[in-house]
Amino acid sequence: MLKDWVKSEKPGDEEITERLQKAREALSGMQMAIKEKKLPVLVILDGWGGAGKGGILGKVIKNLDPRFYKTETLSKISEDEARRPFLYRYFVRIPEAGKFSFFDGSWMDEITRNRLTGDTDDETYHRQLTSIKRFERTLSDNGYLVVKFFFNISEKEQKKRLEALEEDSSTRWRVEKWDRWQNKHYDKCVDVYDEYLEATNQFIAPWYFIDSKSRRWAELQMTELLVKSIEIALQNTGRAAAVLQNTFPLKQVTPLSEIPLDKRVSPAEYDTRLKELQDRLSELHNRIYLNKIPVIIGYEGWDAAGKGGNIKRLTAALDPRGFEVHPIASPEPREKNRHYLWRFWNRLPKDGHIAVFDRTWYGRVMVERLEGFCSENDWQRAYNEINEFEKELTDWGAIVIKFWVQIDKDTQLERFTDRQNTPEKQWKITDEDWRNREKWDLYEGAIDEMIRKTSTEYAPWYILESVDKRYARIKALEIVIEEIEKKL
Amino acid sequence: MLKDWVKSEKPGDEEITERLQKAREALSGMQMAIKEKKLPVLVILDGWGGAGKGGILGKVIKNLDPRFYKTETLSKISEDEARRPFLYRYFVRIPEAGKFSFFDGSWMDEITRNRLTGDTDDETYHRQLTSIKRFERTLSDNGYLVVKFFFNISEKEQKKRLEALEEDSSTRWRVEKWDRWQNKHYDKCVDVYDEYLEATNQFIAPWYFIDSKSRRWAELQMTELLVKSIEIALQNTGRAAAVLQNTFPLKQVTPLSEIPLDKRVSPAEYDTRLKELQDRLSELHNRIYLNKIPVIIGYEGWDAAGKGGNIKRLTAALDPRGFEVHPIASPEPREKNRHYLWRFWNRLPKDGHIAVFDRTWYGRVMVERLEGFCSENDWQRAYNEINEFEKELTDWGAIVIKFWVQIDKDTQLERFTDRQNTPEKQWKITDEDWRNREKWDLYEGAIDEMIRKTSTEYAPWYILESVDKRYARIKALEIVIEEIEKKL
Repeated sequence: MLKDWVKSEKPGDEEITERLQKAREALSGMQMAIKEKKLPVLVILDGWGGAGKGGILGKVIKNLDPRFYKTETLSKISEDEARRPFLYRYFVRIPEAGKFSFFDGSWMDEITRNRLTGDTDDETYHRQLTSIKRFERTLSDNGYLVVKFFFNISEKEQKKRLEALEEDSSTRWRVEKWDRWQNKHYDKCVDVYDEYLEATNQFIAPWYFIDSKSRRWAELQMTELLVKSIEIALQNTGRAAAVLQNTFPLKQVTPLSEIPLDKRVSPAEYDTRLKELQDRLSELHNRIYLNKIPVIIGYEGWDAAGKGGNIKRLTAALDPRGFEVHPIASPEPREKNRHYLWRFWNRLPKDGHIAVFDRTWYGRVMVERLEGFCSENDWQRAYNEINEFEKELTDWGAIVIKFWVQIDKDTQLERFTDRQNTPEKQWKITDEDWRNREKWDLYEGAIDEMIRKTSTEYAPWYILESVDKRYARIKALEIVIEEIEKKL
Repeated sequence: MLKDWVKSEKPGDEEITERLQKAREALSGMQMAIKEKKLPVLVILDGWGGAGKGGILGKVIKNLDPRFYKTETLSKISEDEARRPFLYRYFVRIPEAGKFSFFDGSWMDEITRNRLTGDTDDETYHRQLTSIKRFERTLSDNGYLVVKFFFNISEKEQKKRLEALEEDSSTRWRVEKWDRWQNKHYDKCVDVYDEYLEATNQFIAPWYFIDSKSRRWAELQMTELLVKSIEIALQNTGRAAAVLQNTFPLKQVTPLSEIPLDKRVSPAEYDTRLKELQDRLSELHNRIYLNKIPVIIGYEGWDAAGKGGNIKRLTAALDPRGFEVHPIASPEPREKNRHYLWRFWNRLPKDGHIAVFDRTWYGRVMVERLEGFCSENDWQRAYNEINEFEKELTDWGAIVIKFWVQIDKDTQLERFTDRQNTPEKQWKITDEDWRNREKWDLYEGAIDEMIRKTSTEYAPWYILESVDKRYARIKALEIVIEEIEKKL
């Protein structure tokens, strides 16, 4: 792409001035529509060192209200970010609905740099390419406009610019070692960039090349392309996206109604076994910390199924410095205004740590689906989006364990009644619980579908039969221990 | 304190078992009251390396529902944290109302370590002590329970434990260089710790020593002390705290009503001057980046006074990679559930960066005061709390600039009417704006009091006369430039 790209001819100065004024006004005029239509706009700027991205970005955003955009400089990966999954640092920075985010540097920079230095092997590179394509696609599917610019200059021009920057003591710090390396290996870079640009030139987030030899001309190109892209996106807000076929290996699962719930463990056996298992898990926690393995455990289940008590028995075995429990309630405004997985990306553990989610991202295909908090197209796409999300986590090296805590309808009634009648337990029961109970059958259908479609081999569901809560706790501990042992 | 501390005698095993069971149940039973009364509980664990803080913490939290607490390991300061003000890393981690945060290690660790290694001079040490005392006090004043534990063991016991840990290959990694250093310089450490403990042993957050020779006994002491502290705090929720006398140097200020608003600048002069000033600011931005100076600019002003346009002219001069604009709306739930300054601590810039706040922490003494969103005691204390906050920022090296954008009542009416009648501007005007306008006089009183009480010499208010918006923009740029030049 880069090699055979055909530059459009640079217009005369007068024309540039005229068109620039028009484009700037157009961009500025669009802000209200973006806000009203709640369109999130992610603009990424990639390209050669010295191509002037920063300066041009500075010009372009002058046309915007500073309350409606954020800029992010993404060249340097922090220590903390290095301990998170691939793309983490980009996902947590996506814009809110109705706002812009401008990324100076992006995942292209990260992946191509590692390719050029030989820090990633072919397999990793191709896996990361897939991740990137999925990332851009899921943003687009969830209503994001993603605009990608590549600022291009020739080898000669780059050389000239770097030398000029270096000559001036006040600008010398701007030239990084990497820029000089790039210029020295210009042709090699072109090859690697070309391969990447080609592979990621998706319909939902195409590449735009910017001839960056003249700054005003570059600003004009970028502004006009941005205006055009936004115009189109504004026409498309709320559109449905393709529901992709599943490509992940799935396990056979049993419908909830066919799962026997008569499993029990005696109180005496429970005490002995619990202690054994907690001791074992405690040892393993130490080892996953040392081996830097992240562990993500999600709990879903019927109201009053015993999630809280189950989680407590699990965390009791863990070193408090190495785990965190995330209770998931309805999203706050800043969360509602972003991709629904954003709040989970933000809560991912560092490597070597354990994160326990009390309710999870599966809310999308349960409560959000059944209460109409998202569109049909949204929840139908979600199975694949979630499988992709969990794939990203396991590719990173995480152990992902998902528990469905199962009881029958009668047991729930018993527990609800008990809560209602016991003063210390009344806080645990709300009108909403009773309302949800009325929709039991609808929920059961949704849950069966969810478990069927997301029981991937790399992140399967485990059913915890919890009519006897003790049984469920022992089983949960056994599964967590087994999964960790498999990985070590 | 540490030197003359009188240990209480360790009870017999049987008594420990009995009391432990009672204390654990008591702690567990308190959780609902904590949640209902929205009490935030911050527990810090300090003490000697090898004293077993982590293990004891693990025992204590077993009695708690993992959804209601977070633990934080605070020994290592990250690169990003090192670029923020003193105490930043602790402030951003304070608990939500109704929840616990347990800090394994705290600001004591940071300040005493630097004192021991000689990395801070006397003056810095004493300034930081003051900061710490203010921090603990403002948490307490704002309804936080702060419980501080120091886990004590003797030199001999520490030596024995470190050697035991080092002998076992599976625990060797737990012994840090610092622990060995501590043991070698035990007496010197006692001196430095004692001085610190004495200085920070405040009534609102007293120190509790834990005899940590026996783990069960240590757990018992910690649990009982925690239970006792919570009992007392639960009786005190909602209590009023002392309103301290001002101790910061204040500037003389003019009441709003006496400020002449006839200042103008001609369109031609505006264009020339704007360009000059923006060019100058642009140069300076580069220099504050290189010199790692943080800049914090807060905008407050009447509705329709022209804050947005003023900010835009300022940021237009800045490199997009080095600044951020924070529009401040009403707080989200997680923000409302914490100290009112928390959301601003979270938005502080890194050194070398500029943060512009479109509305600020002064909401506490304007809208929150007048709409009754906080108690009278709350807003009366806020002047001093805010002066302390800004002192922390300037001590860190930040330039803090506060603008009040001023217009008269007639000008506001004109602009409101214009917004009402211009379709593209209607989004800018809401019923709330009209309602606030009715309270003009009340607001004016509150604003005069605010400016009078918070015009400190290190972070003064500047009035921007904005009947002529152009005049106000030029003036803002001039002030920002002047303040930066003074600092460079």
